[in-house]
Amino acid sequence: MTHTHAKQKYRMFNFTIHKTDGLARTGSIKTPHGIIKTPVFMPVGTKATVKTLSPQDLKNLQTQIILANTYHLFLRPGHKVIKKLGGLHKWMNWQHPILTDSGGYQVFSLGQEKGFTKNTDFKTSVKIDENGVEFRSHIDGKKHYLTPKQAIEIQHDLGADIIMAFDECAPANSSKQYFKEAMQRTHNWLKHCINAHKSRTKTQALFGIVQGGIHKNLRIESAKFINDQNLPGNAIGGLAIGESKATMLAMIETTIPHLSTKKPRYLMGVGTPEDLLECVERGIDMFDCVHPTRLGRHGPFWHEHGRASIRNEKFKLDKSPLQKNCLCETCQDCSKSYLRHLIFENEILGLRLMTIHNLHFLLELMRQIHKHIEVKSFSKFKKDFLKKFHAKS
Amino acid sequence: MTHTHAKQKYRMFNFTIHKTDGLARTGSIKTPHGIIKTPVFMPVGTKATVKTLSPQDLKNLQTQIILANTYHLFLRPGHKVIKKLGGLHKWMNWQHPILTDSGGYQVFSLGQEKGFTKNTDFKTSVKIDENGVEFRSHIDGKKHYLTPKQAIEIQHDLGADIIMAFDECAPANSSKQYFKEAMQRTHNWLKHCINAHKSRTKTQALFGIVQGGIHKNLRIESAKFINDQNLPGNAIGGLAIGESKATMLAMIETTIPHLSTKKPRYLMGVGTPEDLLECVERGIDMFDCVHPTRLGRHGPFWHEHGRASIRNEKFKLDKSPLQKNCLCETCQDCSKSYLRHLIFENEILGLRLMTIHNLHFLLELMRQIHKHIEVKSFSKFKKDFLKKFHAKS
Repeated sequence: MTHTHAKQKYRMFNFTIHKTDGLARTGSIKTPHGIIKTPVFMPVGTKATVKTLSPQDLKNLQTQIILANTYHLFLRPGHKVIKKLGGLHKWMNWQHPILTDSGGYQVFSLGQEKGFTKNTDFKTSVKIDENGVEFRSHIDGKKHYLTPKQAIEIQHDLGADIIMAFDECAPANSSKQYFKEAMQRTHNWLKHCINAHKSRTKTQALFGIVQGGIHKNLRIESAKFINDQNLPGNAIGGLAIGESKATMLAMIETTIPHLSTKKPRYLMGVGTPEDLLECVERGIDMFDCVHPTRLGRHGPFWHEHGRASIRNEKFKLDKSPLQKNCLCETCQDCSKSYLRHLIFENEILGLRLMTIHNLHFLLELMRQIHKHIEVKSFSKFKKDFLKKFHAKS
Repeated sequence: MTHTHAKQKYRMFNFTIHKTDGLARTGSIKTPHGIIKTPVFMPVGTKATVKTLSPQDLKNLQTQIILANTYHLFLRPGHKVIKKLGGLHKWMNWQHPILTDSGGYQVFSLGQEKGFTKNTDFKTSVKIDENGVEFRSHIDGKKHYLTPKQAIEIQHDLGADIIMAFDECAPANSSKQYFKEAMQRTHNWLKHCINAHKSRTKTQALFGIVQGGIHKNLRIESAKFINDQNLPGNAIGGLAIGESKATMLAMIETTIPHLSTKKPRYLMGVGTPEDLLECVERGIDMFDCVHPTRLGRHGPFWHEHGRASIRNEKFKLDKSPLQKNCLCETCQDCSKSYLRHLIFENEILGLRLMTIHNLHFLLELMRQIHKHIEVKSFSKFKKDFLKKFHAKS
């Protein structure tokens, strides 16, 4: 395991650990668009907008970094358009850090969902070879072929602060053999990604992604390989896609010891309050998930005693906010009764207000987590939070 | 024509004229929730929310008063629910003035659109008698019967600062005989409304509505009758529903001389830039319309040279704002390119940003109109504005 500090290699990007509490740690990531305090949750702005929210809303929520999806922006409006308009930050008016995924996950997951044809191991319209992936656009069915090199070049055009390697995320029900092949392809592709990224390492930090499915030995092999590339950060992919919670946590526990303690560790696609607590405890620094925003648009919301749905009849005459003492804009301004009305009437304001609350809940939880790690009281905080959270839910 | 000043009769409500410029005038309406400077445009918040916008957005836009629809709120969640939660202002977190319509317009227009059965003069599921109207909910088809008394009582429960008499708005293609009958019913119903409102005149101001279709003698008869009731304000209804622009303006010109100069005059359902200018010039003080907000959600927007649609291909790479030098949040923050992307992707943020611009355009126009009336330069302003506005549109 190499422990060369990232800042030596990537002038504009570095990661500093502040405090540790068991495997949990606080730190800060320096990027060209500002500093990110970790552990951090990154709201997902798939099409260069965190659904329902403006950049000002995100700032009000003290959002540190958002994620945008390369796959969607590649298809529409196209990375060349965004580059011509000055890059993602300028185009979407968000001058804070951005992370783009590589498009890999969407290529496979959206292809898989359609299930057009039979492939090696799972039903999909996606055709994988050693050089890249052929897939059909979920918008118009048009064929595209994406290589690791192109995935990186697209991300160069988008211009995010952190960009991700092009990986193959195999479905949860794949055979061990298929998981192994996908992992090996991911490793080979990573070399192409690193090569394609050479000229841009000072302005954009490339993270590698550990794969290996639900098999400990594959996860270990992958973690070692990814870690050895000495990239500014390491991600864990291919989890939270259908395996059990216990398996997910076991895979994280297996992986973490093989990833440098001095690099940020990013667990992709995870974002419930319980998962954040469990994974921070195991040494994860970064998270993203559509969960809080998607949940918000459909009615469920989090509060100190778990989860409820604003659609519930019992809230019809409820004058209280979604959560007692919550400082979010929604809870400051609106009763459950009014929010229930807005969601029932499919009023756009309702979607936005519910999104604001759920994101605030998760971001505030991360701030609490940060605070408690700093004073080494994380375990007690986690226990107390979960006791309350599960009491009535 | 009686010229008793409103404040003598309605302690919390009065109207003061500041300046006049021809028939155009500036004034201020005092209400229990604040002062409204006229001429004023009122954004429409049908279901107790101006679509896509929060109360804070409305404040940022310097919105003075909003309109909410009694018909929709009566059906869902019900006026009794809103009353229990402290009334419309508290429930929707808008502590500034609100006007509610009586539900009359929606009862007829939404009934007419469905066209279930044959009525006296037009195809509708609405059954009208001298005491009230039977109609079916556009949500579930359930039958309701609404009387003028109930329309006022519902508006008492909602608690708006200005409430409207229950009137019959006959379709534009009605016969003269039918327009006359509808007008007479409206007059009879107004007496019931006034009677039902007696106990609440100090906190809510009831406006009567002139009807009479597209017939000058009916409009004159109606204006005289409505004016003679000496209510705190007079509205003109039944226009902008399908008649020509020239007919609409002719009807306004016919009506205005018979309405007290000392009461605010409210033209219902009108809201394009051109119409506001034409009607302010003819002596109108208040307007409402879904136009700017509905337009915004579909792509068209106003700028100094007319109207365009953000969906236009030519804006794909356009870095400029919707309107040069516009001070709205949208134009401060976003390019046409980004807005076009959001609208194409049906992203909620896009609907909100377009709404903000269009409302700002109309509200800013009203502020300009106000300013120019005060210095007696309204005619020149109108001419210059329209010349520019029509130059490229």
